Amino acid sequence: MKALVFRGPGQSVWEDVPDPGIEEATDAIIRVDAVTICGTDLHILKGDVPEVRPGTVLGHEAVGEVVEVGGDVRTVRPGDRVLVSCITACGRCRFCKESAYGQCRGGGGWILGHLINGTQAEYIRVPHADLSVHALPGALDGKDAVLLADIFPTAYEVGVLNGGVRPGDTVVVVGAGPVGLAAIATAQLYTPQRIVAVDPAPARLEAAKQLGADAVAAAAGEDAEELVADLTEGLGADVAIEAVGVPESFEMCTRMVRPGGHVANVGVHGKPATLHLENLWIKNVTITTGLVDTSSTPTLLRMMAAGRLPASSLVTHTFPLNQMEEAYDVFARAAVTGALKVVLGGQPHDTVAVKATSQGK
Amino acid sequence: MKALVFRGPGQSVWEDVPDPGIEEATDAIIRVDAVTICGTDLHILKGDVPEVRPGTVLGHEAVGEVVEVGGDVRTVRPGDRVLVSCITACGRCRFCKESAYGQCRGGGGWILGHLINGTQAEYIRVPHADLSVHALPGALDGKDAVLLADIFPTAYEVGVLNGGVRPGDTVVVVGAGPVGLAAIATAQLYTPQRIVAVDPAPARLEAAKQLGADAVAAAAGEDAEELVADLTEGLGADVAIEAVGVPESFEMCTRMVRPGGHVANVGVHGKPATLHLENLWIKNVTITTGLVDTSSTPTLLRMMAAGRLPASSLVTHTFPLNQMEEAYDVFARAAVTGALKVVLGGQPHDTVAVKATSQGK
Repeated sequence: MKALVFRGPGQSVWEDVPDPGIEEATDAIIRVDAVTICGTDLHILKGDVPEVRPGTVLGHEAVGEVVEVGGDVRTVRPGDRVLVSCITACGRCRFCKESAYGQCRGGGGWILGHLINGTQAEYIRVPHADLSVHALPGALDGKDAVLLADIFPTAYEVGVLNGGVRPGDTVVVVGAGPVGLAAIATAQLYTPQRIVAVDPAPARLEAAKQLGADAVAAAAGEDAEELVADLTEGLGADVAIEAVGVPESFEMCTRMVRPGGHVANVGVHGKPATLHLENLWIKNVTITTGLVDTSSTPTLLRMMAAGRLPASSLVTHTFPLNQMEEAYDVFARAAVTGALKVVLGGQPHDTVAVKATSQGK
Repeated sequence: MKALVFRGPGQSVWEDVPDPGIEEATDAIIRVDAVTICGTDLHILKGDVPEVRPGTVLGHEAVGEVVEVGGDVRTVRPGDRVLVSCITACGRCRFCKESAYGQCRGGGGWILGHLINGTQAEYIRVPHADLSVHALPGALDGKDAVLLADIFPTAYEVGVLNGGVRPGDTVVVVGAGPVGLAAIATAQLYTPQRIVAVDPAPARLEAAKQLGADAVAAAAGEDAEELVADLTEGLGADVAIEAVGVPESFEMCTRMVRPGGHVANVGVHGKPATLHLENLWIKNVTITTGLVDTSSTPTLLRMMAAGRLPASSLVTHTFPLNQMEEAYDVFARAAVTGALKVVLGGQPHDTVAVKATSQGK
């Protein structure tokens, strides 16, 4: 089969590799229908994630059809259309028993495209298939559903749920890339009073508005902090969601949050931030970090099937599966191309601009 | 009357000042029976808390008798024995309505010995008396009860409750000073599997054991981190409570906590710490900071009256009220004197070494 193989920092090739086969009785083999590229894949290509060894097939998000299952797999069978989640879960360890699948100690967690071969390929071997793939409601478009493999549960669990968004809250989302936009979309499930999006890119702020942000601010300077202060009588945001992954945006979140508020870090960070405890010790702030558990994926699948999640408005570019290298190029140059999510494979689908949906205000 | 007056960094004097009087209809005047000195008072004397103006009477903890109340005070009357809490609360603002009294926006919060005259005096004016003093159960010794003005609710709310201690947990308390020891005492209310105390001072580790710590480690080097790793099969502590207030101990807590665990910062910090988001982003860690709300004070008073809180074992030195300067000297030189809590006033009380109580193991 063909797959995108990591060849070391800065290098990846769409090339022939051996087809995967069942290795454990809990495995499933999936024929890929649609995949997408994550910002984390770009981090890997930069060499920021050293545990990814050269030779690994990249990618941790897919939709496809089950073609073979091991003898112990009970929940799916050949012919089923499934979502391949970015998180694989043994279901038996202490963490899985508490739904903390992202921290699985039984051989799961984030392993696809990280510790084992991933999804940017024609076929995928998924370990622990019973808890790691999700049967798709029939009507779902694969190109939409693939966004539930990572960015929607990540934004919802690590941003909205960890942040404890409540009705009436002022929510600030710093970073209006795909995950930040998914946070804006899913924060609305809790009916906050307002959502403020912060990003340096005007096009992303426009997308944020279309997905439901009530106010937007450029990240540069102190405009965003002044805006949040003005909107909240100087008090600060109830919840600040960090969806960038750099120290500056994290520190901005800790300045923008009100006493008693929450900073939910969603960004993937490569270096430390400064935590101003000399200001924060007295402020009753809660800071959370997290890798997604995907415990919300069944709920999000149901909501998407009911038309309640505006996933398709995040897909700006589509490609056939064999144009993987071109798709990476478009995604990596998002500042120029305007790419949000780039989907490969699936049904024919026009390249669309971000557009408002029934969820947008 | 006499009071300890802050005269600028490094200077305080026990001297004559005007008696306080009722200024607002919600005030009460308390004649002091017992007061104590907080580590925060030492920070103020060092000049670390610049909003304390010279001329301010220090102190934010006391037990005494109500001698006069304003016309709007309903819950106490002259003759009542009361605890003067470190937190004053208007009871009407948005934060008070959510029991976040420490963040009171209606003129309360931590004001005694900070923004207005405090408790290290013969008489105190307490604003918003209805929510800011607590009637004492009759049998309580003032020297014990005064520890409920700050350190016990601080350790319990900001350490144990914010940290989310649960039955079966491994709890690490970094810093075995008075607040750390109170955290060790109150963490046991949730029946953790084990409590590990970390401190450089052998005498404090001994006190920690007597108050219920199951294991102790010197803070220097990596001994403490190795001990916690060994006790938890390499996983880390469920809850790490920071009770020192320096970057090193905070950062140690973030290294010692398990995936999905909690770091509860209790320490008063004067400078920033480094937050290693490059390690923590994926670890599902919750970090909390906080000033005490004293919402737990009524509960802690009931438990103390029932003999369930080992407060008296924390009182190592007692002085008459007029020996304030000597008491500060003993408290400030705790490394030499072995002082934990120093209480002034109250009934005659021998100076006692830290001793085990019925709560200790």
